[in-house]
Amino acid sequence: MKVNGVEVEETFAEAFDIKIARVLITAYDYYWAWVSANEATGFGTSVIMCPAEAGIEKKALPSETPDGRPGYYIQICHMSKKGLEEQLLARIGQCVLTAPTTAAFNGLPEAQDKFDTGFKLKFFGDGYEREVEVGGRKCYAVPMMQGEFIVESHFGYVSGIAGGNFFIFGKTQPSALAAAKAAVDAIADVEGVITPFPGGVVASGSKVGANKYKFLKASTNEKFAPTLRDKVEGSQIPPEVEAVYEIVINGLNIDAVKKAMRVGILAATKIPGVVKITAGNYGGKLGKHLIYLKDLF
Amino acid sequence: MKVNGVEVEETFAEAFDIKIARVLITAYDYYWAWVSANEATGFGTSVIMCPAEAGIEKKALPSETPDGRPGYYIQICHMSKKGLEEQLLARIGQCVLTAPTTAAFNGLPEAQDKFDTGFKLKFFGDGYEREVEVGGRKCYAVPMMQGEFIVESHFGYVSGIAGGNFFIFGKTQPSALAAAKAAVDAIADVEGVITPFPGGVVASGSKVGANKYKFLKASTNEKFAPTLRDKVEGSQIPPEVEAVYEIVINGLNIDAVKKAMRVGILAATKIPGVVKITAGNYGGKLGKHLIYLKDLF
Amino acid sequence: MKVNGVEVEETFAEAFDIKIARVLITAYDYYWAWVSANEATGFGTSVIMCPAEAGIEKKALPSETPDGRPGYYIQICHMSKKGLEEQLLARIGQCVLTAPTTAAFNGLPEAQDKFDTGFKLKFFGDGYEREVEVGGRKCYAVPMMQGEFIVESHFGYVSGIAGGNFFIFGKTQPSALAAAKAAVDAIADVEGVITPFPGGVVASGSKVGANKYKFLKASTNEKFAPTLRDKVEGSQIPPEVEAVYEIVINGLNIDAVKKAMRVGILAATKIPGVVKITAGNYGGKLGKHLIYLKDLF
Amino acid sequence: MKVNGVEVEETFAEAFDIKIARVLITAYDYYWAWVSANEATGFGTSVIMCPAEAGIEKKALPSETPDGRPGYYIQICHMSKKGLEEQLLARIGQCVLTAPTTAAFNGLPEAQDKFDTGFKLKFFGDGYEREVEVGGRKCYAVPMMQGEFIVESHFGYVSGIAGGNFFIFGKTQPSALAAAKAAVDAIADVEGVITPFPGGVVASGSKVGANKYKFLKASTNEKFAPTLRDKVEGSQIPPEVEAVYEIVINGLNIDAVKKAMRVGILAATKIPGVVKITAGNYGGKLGKHLIYLKDLF
Repeated sequence: MKVNGVEVEETFAEAFDIKIARVLITAYDYYWAWVSANEATGFGTSVIMCPAEAGIEKKALPSETPDGRPGYYIQICHMSKKGLEEQLLARIGQCVLTAPTTAAFNGLPEAQDKFDTGFKLKFFGDGYEREVEVGGRKCYAVPMMQGEFIVESHFGYVSGIAGGNFFIFGKTQPSALAAAKAAVDAIADVEGVITPFPGGVVASGSKVGANKYKFLKASTNEKFAPTLRDKVEGSQIPPEVEAVYEIVINGLNIDAVKKAMRVGILAATKIPGVVKITAGNYGGKLGKHLIYLKDLF
Repeated sequence: MKVNGVEVEETFAEAFDIKIARVLITAYDYYWAWVSANEATGFGTSVIMCPAEAGIEKKALPSETPDGRPGYYIQICHMSKKGLEEQLLARIGQCVLTAPTTAAFNGLPEAQDKFDTGFKLKFFGDGYEREVEVGGRKCYAVPMMQGEFIVESHFGYVSGIAGGNFFIFGKTQPSALAAAKAAVDAIADVEGVITPFPGGVVASGSKVGANKYKFLKASTNEKFAPTLRDKVEGSQIPPEVEAVYEIVINGLNIDAVKKAMRVGILAATKIPGVVKITAGNYGGKLGKHLIYLKDLF
Repeated sequence: MKVNGVEVEETFAEAFDIKIARVLITAYDYYWAWVSANEATGFGTSVIMCPAEAGIEKKALPSETPDGRPGYYIQICHMSKKGLEEQLLARIGQCVLTAPTTAAFNGLPEAQDKFDTGFKLKFFGDGYEREVEVGGRKCYAVPMMQGEFIVESHFGYVSGIAGGNFFIFGKTQPSALAAAKAAVDAIADVEGVITPFPGGVVASGSKVGANKYKFLKASTNEKFAPTLRDKVEGSQIPPEVEAVYEIVINGLNIDAVKKAMRVGILAATKIPGVVKITAGNYGGKLGKHLIYLKDLF
Repeated sequence: MKVNGVEVEETFAEAFDIKIARVLITAYDYYWAWVSANEATGFGTSVIMCPAEAGIEKKALPSETPDGRPGYYIQICHMSKKGLEEQLLARIGQCVLTAPTTAAFNGLPEAQDKFDTGFKLKFFGDGYEREVEVGGRKCYAVPMMQGEFIVESHFGYVSGIAGGNFFIFGKTQPSALAAAKAAVDAIADVEGVITPFPGGVVASGSKVGANKYKFLKASTNEKFAPTLRDKVEGSQIPPEVEAVYEIVINGLNIDAVKKAMRVGILAATKIPGVVKITAGNYGGKLGKHLIYLKDLF
C-alpha cells in the first residue's frame, strides 16, 4: 500500500492494556499550565524503567474548564491500579500543587473508577484546608504561600491502550526525524492520546528481552538497526535507509490510538526522504491489540 | 537591609547536603538537546515524593562539548549514593538513550567519585555495542533504530547542596510571581545551579512535618500563608501582602548557591509590587548550611 | 456591571475599518510554519508608523490545508487597498518564499476581492516556474535552492475591523500584565482575529494627536497614565491603580472582534489584582464601530 | 578541503557594507524582552523588499545592562544612514515603546556616530516626559498607561557587514535543513552577528538581477536549484543533492562575520547527509568583502 507515494508495509502494531488517569491542569495562562503539565509528565517515557508513562494530551480552552482558566490535559499511565494511584498522588502533589497558580481537576469526569487523590492531597493544608465547589466539582482549597491551591476531590481512570506505534524509515537520519516531528505535531491535535517519549519520538525502538544479556527486559531491535544491516541475519533495513524512528502512542481507547496512527503516518509521508512506514509487533508477546496499518486508510 | 529599595530580612536560608550527578546531553541542535534534558529532569522537584530532584543547569556551546555539538548540562540529585545511581541509570536510559540524536557525557569529568552508568547502558546493544573514543572520553556506541547512541563510560558525582532558598512577598500574586520568574531567569545563567521546582518556582513552601496530620513529611507553612494571616498565631505575612513565592536552589557547591541567591534577589527586587524578601529556615532541623541574606550583598 | 467580580465600565470601544488579507502558511511542522508566520507579521503593530498591522491568527491542522501539512493563518491589515497589496507581496516574498519548507495559500478563498500576489511572486523563478494544482487551488511552483516553493495564484482580502480594544486596570503592574497575557491567550483561540501589538499587549495606549506637540499623529493618553494621576485634570486612574494595559484586536468582521473582547475580558478578570476593565474611545474621531462592553455579556 | 569529513569548496563569500544600529532591550524577564525584540526585528530579512534587515543578536545578562534587568541585543541594518534612522525610530517607537515592561538602551555606546532617536521618541509623552539617568546613561522617562517607558537619548551606529554566507548541500532536504538549523544555533552565541532570514535560514538563495525578467532586482539562483539540475547549463548541483540552504550573516565587523561562518560550518558538517559546503559570490557585483572559506579553518 502507498500513502502519499510512500510504501506502507502490510503489517500491524501490537499494543497492550494500561491504566490511564487524566488530569486537567489550569493556571493563569497557557505558559504556567504548561510548566506544571510538563513537570508532571517528565521522566515518563516507558514503564520499563520510568515510574509511569505520561504526556501532555492537549490544550483546554478557558470555556471548557471548571474554573474558566486555560489549561492542559495530561495523561498518567501505569500497568497496575496501585502503581497508578501512587503516581497520580506523587505527580500532582509534587508537580501541580507546587506550581504557580495551578489547579488540578479530574480529566475523566465520566469515568466510573476513581482515586481520592484530592482528598489525600488536602492534608497538606495541615487542618486549614476547606471544601469548596468549583464549576460544579467537589474540590478542596489548600492554603499555601502563594494563596490557595484548588484540587478536585476525586480523579477518574480507565483501562486504555499503550504501545500503538509505527516506524519511519528515512534515506537520511534528518529525513526520518523531520517526519517523526511532523507526525508528532499532527498527533498533538488528536483527542485522547499522548506520545510519551522525548519530543514524542523514539530513537531506540526495542525488542522484548535480549538475546545475549538475559537480565534485560528490553534491548535494541537489531533487525531494525541500520548500522547492523550487514551484521545480523534477517535485517529489515533496505540498502537506502540510514535511520528509523518510532512513534509510540498511548490513548484512552483503541479508536483514538488508531486515529493518531493514521494522521501521524499521513504527516510523516509528506516529508522528503521517507522511504517506508512499518510498525512494531512482537508475536503477541507484548499485547493483545493488533492494529493493522492497511485498516487505517 | 534594602536591595533595590526592597526590604531584605536579616535571616538565613537553611540548606542541606545532597549527592549530585551532572550529565552533558548533546544533540543536532538546542531543541533536541532540550527535549531530552527536559524529559530527563521531569518529575524531579523534591525528594519528598519525587524519585530525584533534577533540573537543566545551562547550555553547552558546541566548542565546549566532546562531540562538538550543542547541548545542555543537567543535574540529578539524591540523598543517597545508591538512589542517585539508580536515578542516573534510569533517567539516562529512558530519557536520553531514547531521545532523537542525543549523546550523554559525564558533566563532572573532574569528580573523583564515579558511577559506571555508561558501561551498564551499553548492554542495551545486546552484544553489538562497541567502545569508542569521543573527544578524548571513553564511550560506547550502541546500535539502535536511529543509528548509534554514544554514552560515556563513567559519570562523576559530588556532594553538593540542596535547599538554598529565598521568599518573595508580593502586594499581589502576579507581582510575586513576576519577581519569581525574573529571579529564575537571572539564576539560569549562574554556573553550577538548578532550580528544580516547576518553572523554578515553589508555590507551596512547606514546613518540616505537620502539626495536625502527624503522618506527613511536610505540610503547608501556615505562618507564611496569606489567607491564614488572621487565623494563625505568629503569621509572618504583613497586611499588604497577598502572595509569597519561594525559589529553591540546588548547586554543586555553596558558592554557586550563594551566587544564585544573590542574582535572584537582585532580579526579584526589580519587579513592581515586591515588598519584602526573606528566607526559609527550620531551626536546624533540615540542614547544616546557614546562608545569611545580608552576607550576599 | 461586574464580570468575575471586577467592575466593567459602561462605555464602548471605538473601532475602525481596515482592509485585511489572510494567508495560510504551511510547512514541514508547526515550528517552521511559525518561523515564517512570525517573520511575516513582525514590525506590524500599528499603521501609525509600521508598514502594516499584522499578526498570527491561529493554527491550521494538516487535515484542513490544501497540501495536508500543518500551518498557521496570518492576517495583514492596511488602510488602503494599494498599501495592502504592496505589503502582501513584500511580506510573502521576503518572509514566506525565503523560509524553509513553507508554502503560501489564500486564507480567504471565499473573498471576492483578490490580489494576484502569487502570479507576481512566480517571476522569482526567472522563467523556470510552472503552474501546478494543489488541493484544488491554482498555484505556482517556483524552483529554488531548497527545491520548490508553492504559492497560490491569488489571495483574497476583505474589509475588516481594526482597533477593537479594552483596558485592564491593575493594582500592580504585574497584575495588569498577567491579566493582559491571560486575555491574549484566551483570544488566541478565537477564529478570525489577531492582537497585533507585541505579545498581543499595548503598554502605551495613545490618544489621537497631541496637545503640546502638534506634529504627532498620536501621543500618550495622559488621562490613563498612572504616574500622572495627580498632574493632569480629569485623570481616569483610581488611587489604587498602578498600571493599565490595553488589548487591541483586529478581525475579519465585527462579530469576531466582539467575541475576542468578550473572552479576553473574561480571562483578564480571573487574575488577582485586576480592579477595573474599560475601553478606549475617541469621540468618534477614530472610527465608526462602537462596541459597548455591556453588550458583550 | 574537508571539515568534519565534508567537502568545503575553495571559494569565497561576497559580502557588502551596510549601516548597523544596535539596541539593547530590557524587560521584566527574557520572555517580555524577547517579545519586543522579536516584533522589532520582524519583516526584516533582506533590503530587497523589506524596510530593513534586522535580527536578535544575543541575550544580555542582568549584570551587564544599565537597569540591571535581563534583555536582548538586536541589530537593525540599512544601506543608507537616513533609512537606518527612520527604521530605528519606527521600530523602537512601534515595537519597544509599545511593548510591556521594556526599556531601550544604546547597544553601541562606543560608537561615535549617533542618532537622537530617544530624544525624538520622548515627544510621545506630550510634555509630561522627563530626563533621567539610568546606569550612567542619559535617558528619558515617558509616562504612559503601563507607567513609564525608559529610552536612552542617543543610539550609536557603525558601518558593518552584510551578506556573509555559506551554502549547505544535502542528500535530502531535511538533512540540509537540520544542518542549517544547527548552524544557526551555533552562530547564535557569536557576539556581534545576526542571521536575518526566517529562523536564520534562506530557502531561496538568489542571484543579482534576472535573465528573463529584467525588472527584478533578484531572482532564483538556477545554477543551485536541484530541480533544474538537468535543465540549466552549468548547474552546480551534484547528482546526489536534493536541497541547498543558505545561511546569511550580518555583523558589526568582518571578524565577527568570519567567526560566525566558521562555527556555522563546523556545526552544519556534523549533521548526517550533508555532502558539501560552498558560498555565494557574484563576481564582485554585490560587495567588496571576499571571505575565503579555506581561511576560516
